[in-house]
Amino acid sequence: MQLDDARALDRNDPFADTARLFDLPQGVIYLDGNSLGPPPRPALDALTKAAQAEWGHDLIASWNSADWMGLPLRTGARIARLIGVDETSVIAGDSVSVNLFKLAAGLVMGGAKGVAVERGDFPTDGYVMEGLARLSGTPFTLIEPGAGVAGLPDGHDVLVRSAVHYKTAAKVDIAAEEREAARLGRTIIWDLSHAAGLVGLQLERDGAKYAVGCGYKYLNGGPGAPAFVYCHRDVVESFAQPLSGWMGHATPFAFKDGYKPATGVSRFAAGTPAILSMSALHGALSAFEGLDMAQVEAKARALGDTFLAAIAPLGLETISPPSAQRAGHVSLVHEDGYAVVQAMIAEGVIGDFREPDVMRFGFAPLYLTHAQVFNAGQIMVEIIQSGRFSEPRFGKRNAVT
Amino acid sequence: MQLDDARALDRNDPFADTARLFDLPQGVIYLDGNSLGPPPRPALDALTKAAQAEWGHDLIASWNSADWMGLPLRTGARIARLIGVDETSVIAGDSVSVNLFKLAAGLVMGGAKGVAVERGDFPTDGYVMEGLARLSGTPFTLIEPGAGVAGLPDGHDVLVRSAVHYKTAAKVDIAAEEREAARLGRTIIWDLSHAAGLVGLQLERDGAKYAVGCGYKYLNGGPGAPAFVYCHRDVVESFAQPLSGWMGHATPFAFKDGYKPATGVSRFAAGTPAILSMSALHGALSAFEGLDMAQVEAKARALGDTFLAAIAPLGLETISPPSAQRAGHVSLVHEDGYAVVQAMIAEGVIGDFREPDVMRFGFAPLYLTHAQVFNAGQIMVEIIQSGRFSEPRFGKRNAVT
Repeated sequence: MQLDDARALDRNDPFADTARLFDLPQGVIYLDGNSLGPPPRPALDALTKAAQAEWGHDLIASWNSADWMGLPLRTGARIARLIGVDETSVIAGDSVSVNLFKLAAGLVMGGAKGVAVERGDFPTDGYVMEGLARLSGTPFTLIEPGAGVAGLPDGHDVLVRSAVHYKTAAKVDIAAEEREAARLGRTIIWDLSHAAGLVGLQLERDGAKYAVGCGYKYLNGGPGAPAFVYCHRDVVESFAQPLSGWMGHATPFAFKDGYKPATGVSRFAAGTPAILSMSALHGALSAFEGLDMAQVEAKARALGDTFLAAIAPLGLETISPPSAQRAGHVSLVHEDGYAVVQAMIAEGVIGDFREPDVMRFGFAPLYLTHAQVFNAGQIMVEIIQSGRFSEPRFGKRNAVT
Repeated sequence: MQLDDARALDRNDPFADTARLFDLPQGVIYLDGNSLGPPPRPALDALTKAAQAEWGHDLIASWNSADWMGLPLRTGARIARLIGVDETSVIAGDSVSVNLFKLAAGLVMGGAKGVAVERGDFPTDGYVMEGLARLSGTPFTLIEPGAGVAGLPDGHDVLVRSAVHYKTAAKVDIAAEEREAARLGRTIIWDLSHAAGLVGLQLERDGAKYAVGCGYKYLNGGPGAPAFVYCHRDVVESFAQPLSGWMGHATPFAFKDGYKPATGVSRFAAGTPAILSMSALHGALSAFEGLDMAQVEAKARALGDTFLAAIAPLGLETISPPSAQRAGHVSLVHEDGYAVVQAMIAEGVIGDFREPDVMRFGFAPLYLTHAQVFNAGQIMVEIIQSGRFSEPRFGKRNAVT
């Protein structure tokens, strides 16, 4: 593959207009949207409006006049379309960790017997289930990577599983897993953190009933953007979750003692939502308006293939699956991976590093072109072949999300 | 009292400079800072910087270069000074509801036998304890208003209690309650939502070990601003809380299976913090720099007295205690309270209403003058005496936080 081939692919890009919503810094090729999406202009505009016109000028009245009260559900409705579910079945708020707790604890309160997470899945999923187990006495077990719902040990009936693995970008066949869960009478809570806004998810069609996901990766909602919860309408009305704060009450402003959950997915609200952060997320989601998520996913995989083609001369090992099973990023192994990533950042190509030796490069289709990605690959080839990553300034390890 | 007396009080105002940090809309007298504080300029500046320079330009690197990683503790340190505790013992994040759950659930995991909340205290406190009780099997009971820690029923050893009541603004004598708790071997979790940033709290001196509080009222952090948790350094290292997300892990970027809490109050972090909202809160807190919180509290009470003097001709019933036991707001009873508050808003005086008949007016000392408060009182007198609140446009009830 040559640069001209990449340019040819860009001529058929269905998202060329979308890219104009992003003002990425000059000279930067941003391959870290899988960790923190950059701001689309509508996100910054919505944030400014929320801060200045709504908070600053209209003050307390904005709870009604700007419909801050409805913002978690309005934001959820925009996310629902991206993950293939009814628009009333998603609410934005809190973090992935807290939302996972709500769903798993609610299942435990409803009679679930034991919870499992695959070893090596995103750590917070296991950490939070450990906490739930300690508090509730429900067994929690780490199972083998890839074991899936069929690998749940005896006495366990709930699996928390990433739809896309944070390290390898391997996609799970959600429909197949849900069929297996139905056959075995087990329940899956999907963590969509590396899938939402990238993969052409069809959760309802595939039989998924419970999911959480992240607002700050492919949804571009801003650092620490509110997360979201999906709960299928067939199960939500009998679902009780223990973080039963006033915003999830049927009548929050009646100020009555005694919790009575709101109708539908609103019962997953807990405390007062972070309106400024959520306004940015709500604005950011407008960048997805009218996009076909299957096309978004297809472009992400194609961009990944362009990158792999550009770096083919290096012969690096990848821990990511081939394009058909891969979502939005590619992970490569290099013993000096940390230094290589730092050297690439110094030359404007931003990826990230995961211990002990994994370099991750994300291919968010809304703002990247094949030509950029090909150039990024060529820069990587030069850096590794020239050995210039071994300069001392690139050597010191440093935590980067 | 006359307007000139109010003006005389303003001539000795120690916070005249602080008021210049706030750009309240022309013609508005804002008496609802007890519900949503208005934006001080440093809050908006910090938000713009976080959104544009940090997120927009420096992207993922800002976790280190802008120290987003340290923002929850840096914000906590600014709050610590306002509540009279060691600056390393507070962390900002999540909501009051979620943070109450962390503290109470942690106490339950540590062996607490039963949890209580006073009837009529802020509803979320009871709602969340109900959820905890359902999940953990620990008894939860609503006790009589004002019963305090001595009123805990047998088999209960934890009380969640507001330091300032959201409806009446009555202050609790924290030191006396903590002495009683120590004598009885019981534990109090303080909800500082209507106290932090207003009352001259000295939690450490008074023996308090656990507290949560709100970022969007007197701290002026913005709608739904992150809340905070305080946990005394003597108990924090053995404290386990079940919302054990990756940001509270000792080494979040090692991505290891198995939760190991971070040292100190950092273990109360759960998921990724809402950086945009928290940046606004961090900026807002700079308005308190160098202020004496005892003076802040004294001015709030004096402002309340000015308002009560101005409306004395109305002879309204108040459910708030006299100024020595009162914090930042005054609550008055009127059967047409909703319409009166709406009519006052129409004339630029913003207060709020709580079912069934309570009008609340808050006196945040950082941006209000005695003259403004006296004028607000006079407007209220005119509205009620003229009966113009009974126009149909003021009659319809509507949820306002």
